[in-house]
Amino acid sequence: MNTLYLKKNEDRRIRAGHLWIFSNEVDTARSPIKSFSPGEETRVVDSAGGFVAMAYVNPTPLIFGRVYSRSSGDRLDAELLAKRLGQALELREKLFDTPHYRLAFGEGDYLPGLVIDRYGDLLVAQLTTAGMDSRRKALAEALRATVRNARIVFKNDSTARELEGLPLSVEALEGDVPDEAELAESGAKFVTPLAGGQKTGWFYDMRPNRQRLAGLATGGRVLDVFSYVGGLGVLAAVRGASEAICLDSSETALKYAARNAELNGVADKVRTERGDAFDVLARLHDAGERFDAVSVDPPAFIKRKKDHPQGMQAYTNINRLAMRLVRDGGWLLSASCSQHLSRDELRSVLGRAASKAGVRAQIVEQGHQGPDHPVHPAMPETDYLKSYLLRVLR
Amino acid sequence: MNTLYLKKNEDRRIRAGHLWIFSNEVDTARSPIKSFSPGEETRVVDSAGGFVAMAYVNPTPLIFGRVYSRSSGDRLDAELLAKRLGQALELREKLFDTPHYRLAFGEGDYLPGLVIDRYGDLLVAQLTTAGMDSRRKALAEALRATVRNARIVFKNDSTARELEGLPLSVEALEGDVPDEAELAESGAKFVTPLAGGQKTGWFYDMRPNRQRLAGLATGGRVLDVFSYVGGLGVLAAVRGASEAICLDSSETALKYAARNAELNGVADKVRTERGDAFDVLARLHDAGERFDAVSVDPPAFIKRKKDHPQGMQAYTNINRLAMRLVRDGGWLLSASCSQHLSRDELRSVLGRAASKAGVRAQIVEQGHQGPDHPVHPAMPETDYLKSYLLRVLR
Repeated sequence: MNTLYLKKNEDRRIRAGHLWIFSNEVDTARSPIKSFSPGEETRVVDSAGGFVAMAYVNPTPLIFGRVYSRSSGDRLDAELLAKRLGQALELREKLFDTPHYRLAFGEGDYLPGLVIDRYGDLLVAQLTTAGMDSRRKALAEALRATVRNARIVFKNDSTARELEGLPLSVEALEGDVPDEAELAESGAKFVTPLAGGQKTGWFYDMRPNRQRLAGLATGGRVLDVFSYVGGLGVLAAVRGASEAICLDSSETALKYAARNAELNGVADKVRTERGDAFDVLARLHDAGERFDAVSVDPPAFIKRKKDHPQGMQAYTNINRLAMRLVRDGGWLLSASCSQHLSRDELRSVLGRAASKAGVRAQIVEQGHQGPDHPVHPAMPETDYLKSYLLRVLR
Repeated sequence: MNTLYLKKNEDRRIRAGHLWIFSNEVDTARSPIKSFSPGEETRVVDSAGGFVAMAYVNPTPLIFGRVYSRSSGDRLDAELLAKRLGQALELREKLFDTPHYRLAFGEGDYLPGLVIDRYGDLLVAQLTTAGMDSRRKALAEALRATVRNARIVFKNDSTARELEGLPLSVEALEGDVPDEAELAESGAKFVTPLAGGQKTGWFYDMRPNRQRLAGLATGGRVLDVFSYVGGLGVLAAVRGASEAICLDSSETALKYAARNAELNGVADKVRTERGDAFDVLARLHDAGERFDAVSVDPPAFIKRKKDHPQGMQAYTNINRLAMRLVRDGGWLLSASCSQHLSRDELRSVLGRAASKAGVRAQIVEQGHQGPDHPVHPAMPETDYLKSYLLRVLR
C-alpha cells in the first residue's frame, strides 16, 4: 500500500477532524501525486511519518484524498461500508416512521463520496468520487446486507463526477431504472420523477421546514414559490390550508404537483401556476392578492463566487416580492441551499427585503437541512441549507 | 420635540432596519448629546433633514438612541405599547398551549429595552433602558390592557441598567414580590425561584432544545449538566427516561430540581448532584459511567472579548468531558448563550472536542433560542443562543 506524506503541519486540520486532503498539502517529493491511481487506498502520515488516517485518493481533482477511517487497519471494503451504512440506518430508523429519507449523506455519515436516498426498497445512490465509484461491487454488497430486498439505482449523473474524471450514467442493478419514486412525508404521499427528475428525485433536506410551515398554515392561503413537485403546497393542503398555489417554471414538476394533490385527495385545494417566479409574484401583488403563508425556496442563485453580488440582489428581490404578499401577522419561509450564501448573509438579505417591502419582520425560527443530512462538526462544507421562518407585520 | 441629526450616511444602517443609534453616529454640532434628557423621544433625521425614524434616547450609554417606530406620528405611549404587546401576545398564543413564555423580547418584538416573562397572570418585566424605564406607568397600563388580571413585577436587577444610569430594584405593582413562579412546559410542571432566582426566573429560550432531547431519551439514562432547576432532567424523566441526573453548583437550584421531580411524580428517577461540572464529569468517567443523552448548557464562559481564548478552551474541555460519557449511538446536546461565541465557533469547538475525546460525532440538528425570542433580521445582536444536537459514535 502506498503511503501519503503530508507536508509539515498539514496533518493538523485532519487530526482536528476534517476529512479532505488537498493536493497542495501533500509532500509530493516523498509521495508524488501521479504515483497514485484513482480510488486507491493509502495510509496518510505526517511529515515525521506518524500515522494520521486512512484515505482514498484521486490524482485528478483538487481534493486529492478523503479520509474514511482513523484506524490503520481499516480498508474501505464491504465490511466497513456495511458498518457505516448500518450506523446511518440506525439513525434514520430512530428519526422517521417510514423508510423514506436520505440514508447516507457523504462526509456527514463518514461515507465520503456517497449519497443515498431511500424510497422504501428503492435506493438511489450517487457516487461522486473515484474512491467510491471503484467500490461499486462492495457497496452493492453492503447495501444488500443493510436493507432487505434493496433495489439499487446508481444515479451517477451529477456534474461533481466530472471533476473526478468519471463518466455520467444512470443504471439499475436490477431491471430498469424506474421512472418515478414513491414516498411518504409528514403524513402525506408523494410521487416524484426519478430518471428525468432533479438530483435523486426528492429534496428530503427541506422536510422539517415544510412540516413546520404546513403546520402553521391551517385554514389559510399558501403560496409555494419554486414548488418543484408540490412538497410543501400539497402538504399544507393536507394539513388543512384552504388553498395552496404551487408556482414553478417546470411543466413536468407542476404535473407531478397536480398528481400529488390528487393522490392526497386535495386536488380541489391545490392550484398550479407555471411561470417565472419574479414575474408571477409581481403580478399577484398587482392583483391585490395576500397569503397567510408564503414559501420561497429558490435554486442556488449563487453558483460561483463571482455571482455573489448579483445573487445577493436576486435573493433580496425575491424575498421582497414575497413579503409584500404576506398578510399582516402571516408567515414567510425563506430558504437557500447556496454554498456561497452564508446564514448571516441570508438573514441580512431578509432584513433589507423587509425594509424595502415596508414591513416589519421577525425571525421566529431558523431552519437547517433535515436530520438525515448530518453535519460533520469539523467540516463547515457539510452544512449547506439555511432557512428562516419569519412573521410579517404591517 | 428635539430633532436628532445623524451624520452623513449614518442613516443607512437604520434605514436598512437596525434599531440602534450609537453616539458617534450623531451630528453633535446640530444635535448635542447633552441637550437630550434620558428617555426623551426624538425625531431622527438624516444629514439632509429627511425623516428616518422615531427613537428614544439616553445620553449616558454607548447606544444613544433606540428606534421604536418608522412613522413620524408615533409616540411611545400606552397605545403604541399596547399595540406591540398585542402583536407579541398573538404570536405566543399561536405557538403555545399554556400562558408560559417570554411575552416580549426587546428589539425582536420591536419593544427595545423591554423583556417580559409570563407565568400565567404573573408578568415579570425587565426594563433595561431609560426610555422604557421612564414609561413604567404607560407600560403597566398597556400590560393590563393586554393580559387580563395581570400581576406585574418589575425585576429591575439586571446590570444592563447600570450602563443606562438606572438604579437596581425589584418591585411588585400589586402586593409583594412572589418568591416563586409556576409554569408548564412540554407537558411537565415546574416551580422556579423568582426573587432570589436567576434573571427572570426561567430560561424559556431553551424550551425547544429541552423538548427535543427529552423526546430522544425515552428509556435511557440522562445527564443534565448545568441543570439549574431541572428543566431538562425532570422533563426527560417525565418523557420516560429511566434515570436523570441533574448536576449543578447551586444548592438552591438543585432543591428546586428535586421539588420539580416530586411535582411531576418522577422523584424516584431524578437524582441531583452538586459540584463543579468539570470535576463531576471527570469523576463519572473514571467510574465508567455512560449515558444515553447528555446536555451541556453552561453559563457564558466568554463574558468579554478578552476572555475568548480561555473561553474556547473551556467550551472544548467541557464538551470533550461530556462526549466521553455518551454511549455509542447516544446523544449530546451542546448549547452556548455567549454573545462572544459564534455558531461556527461552537461547531468547531465540538469538532475539536470529538477529536480529543476519540469519538466520531455527527451534528443531527441545530438549535436556537425558542420562538418566543424572535430575532430581528437586521440585528444579529438579537440572535444569541446556539446549540447542536450530536450523535456520538465510537
